[in-house]
Amino acid sequence: MAAQPHAPSATLQAALNEVAADIDRRFDLLLEVPDDPRADLYRAMRHAAMGGGKRLRPMLVNATAQLFGVDRDCAGRTGVALECIHVYSLIHDDLPAMDDDDMRHGKPSTHKAFDEATAILAGDCLHALAFEILADPLTHADPYVRVELLADLSRASGPNGMAGGQMMDLQAEKTSFDLPTVTRLQAMKTGALIAAAVEAGAILGRVPVEGRKHLRGYARDLGLAFQIADDILDVEGDEELAGKALRKDENAGKETFLSLLGLDRAREQARMLVDQAIAHLASYGPEADLLRDIARFVTARNH
Amino acid sequence: MAAQPHAPSATLQAALNEVAADIDRRFDLLLEVPDDPRADLYRAMRHAAMGGGKRLRPMLVNATAQLFGVDRDCAGRTGVALECIHVYSLIHDDLPAMDDDDMRHGKPSTHKAFDEATAILAGDCLHALAFEILADPLTHADPYVRVELLADLSRASGPNGMAGGQMMDLQAEKTSFDLPTVTRLQAMKTGALIAAAVEAGAILGRVPVEGRKHLRGYARDLGLAFQIADDILDVEGDEELAGKALRKDENAGKETFLSLLGLDRAREQARMLVDQAIAHLASYGPEADLLRDIARFVTARNH
Repeated sequence: MAAQPHAPSATLQAALNEVAADIDRRFDLLLEVPDDPRADLYRAMRHAAMGGGKRLRPMLVNATAQLFGVDRDCAGRTGVALECIHVYSLIHDDLPAMDDDDMRHGKPSTHKAFDEATAILAGDCLHALAFEILADPLTHADPYVRVELLADLSRASGPNGMAGGQMMDLQAEKTSFDLPTVTRLQAMKTGALIAAAVEAGAILGRVPVEGRKHLRGYARDLGLAFQIADDILDVEGDEELAGKALRKDENAGKETFLSLLGLDRAREQARMLVDQAIAHLASYGPEADLLRDIARFVTARNH
Repeated sequence: MAAQPHAPSATLQAALNEVAADIDRRFDLLLEVPDDPRADLYRAMRHAAMGGGKRLRPMLVNATAQLFGVDRDCAGRTGVALECIHVYSLIHDDLPAMDDDDMRHGKPSTHKAFDEATAILAGDCLHALAFEILADPLTHADPYVRVELLADLSRASGPNGMAGGQMMDLQAEKTSFDLPTVTRLQAMKTGALIAAAVEAGAILGRVPVEGRKHLRGYARDLGLAFQIADDILDVEGDEELAGKALRKDENAGKETFLSLLGLDRAREQARMLVDQAIAHLASYGPEADLLRDIARFVTARNH
């Protein structure tokens, strides 16, 4: 049975389209193919980075930054930096030695379209580019803001964030994790970068750390809801819509939210987390409607 | 015939030992093995990062920073960040899909001691940690300095620096590069990070960009001399001393400085570059002797 498809609100859909077009345009400029022996490296980065993906992380930077009237170009540059990290992680995760996935966003994964060496280097280059973009004064004139963005993103992507979570995920095939461990794994693997996107919006908005409590709560619950929805889609989803192989966790015998909670409780848990995420935004008015729509969307999406 | 062994000056040897001990101590603290499913990830990072290597890049940060009376801990933290990038690049370069090397620093390379997935992630984590260290106020209180260090290192390691050079190097097995192309390849692959180390010392010393011309000239010539010496060692060196497989370029039919220039002209060129590097330091007094010694050492070393 396919998951119940659910369209995002018209406002969110328009915002998602706008962000997707903006991110593609930015990657197009950033990754111009040079006329030298690095051409395939750039082609591989373009293949992985352009024309696919929900652009959830740039959307979150954007929606959070909007709360505080941040310049759109600053938010766009920050969003593309976060997306560089996300894309690099997908390239490396898809490698044969890792999750060994041949398809991504309905296209051959990068090591399939090019080769493994080029894919490894394309990932490494996008990783470095993320930090190069954030360190650039064009992203924000104030070095305090830039260095805080850099601290935020490096923490979220390293051994205590995304990459550490991916390491735990690889172990999950060999050991049977319990619910707290799966929750921690997912909070690191997917949650950390989602949280970093919301945090980046707040940093650009010069919200002091004390003022970020509600946004952090929103991001934490959103990240977890997103992952539970992902686990459900992995079992119930349509491979064609997803553009990648599904049901791999089940086949590998990995514990997931779904295997540990069962479908009904997993759905219930995701719904509860969405409500909770939205509740964290109670102090904001209609200017936070986009963030609320995003929370509803992550559990209702069909891919 | 083995290359003529040549000991570094007593002062340089003492400085190298001190930096090596300091870097190992810093990695030991940074990479404490957690009691969770990421333990092997940290063990892999320790395996790759500790107890091996000349620590040339931290030594250069240190020696340059000393010219300007920079706090030793700031220079040490910056040095370990640069070494994180260097070590990550070695882990990824050694992978089967890349240079396929089984030995490094006289030990099994990381994917041999662990597995490929762990090696890829250990590299990715060291990559992120480099930026996390530089973004930390402990590295320097002034965010201007930190963000400049971050810009310097991200540029030097990305597609226009180290990783771009590695991509060109992979192409070198398929195409026959001429001398200007090999020079550019090496300036990116090895030169960029060596230059970033010297630049980082100048940034920590708050030398304005206009005042860095001589140091940049020094770093450029040093990096090239280093690479020519490396090419000579690859042909003439002792595998046991090197702690890795040698003569791989020759067997792969890659053009190098040595294949393009011949041994005598390559040696002559390296010597000339060392003299030129030292000449760039003419405006400095004895406080730059360490940098001068380093330049002499890179072409005289036997591994």
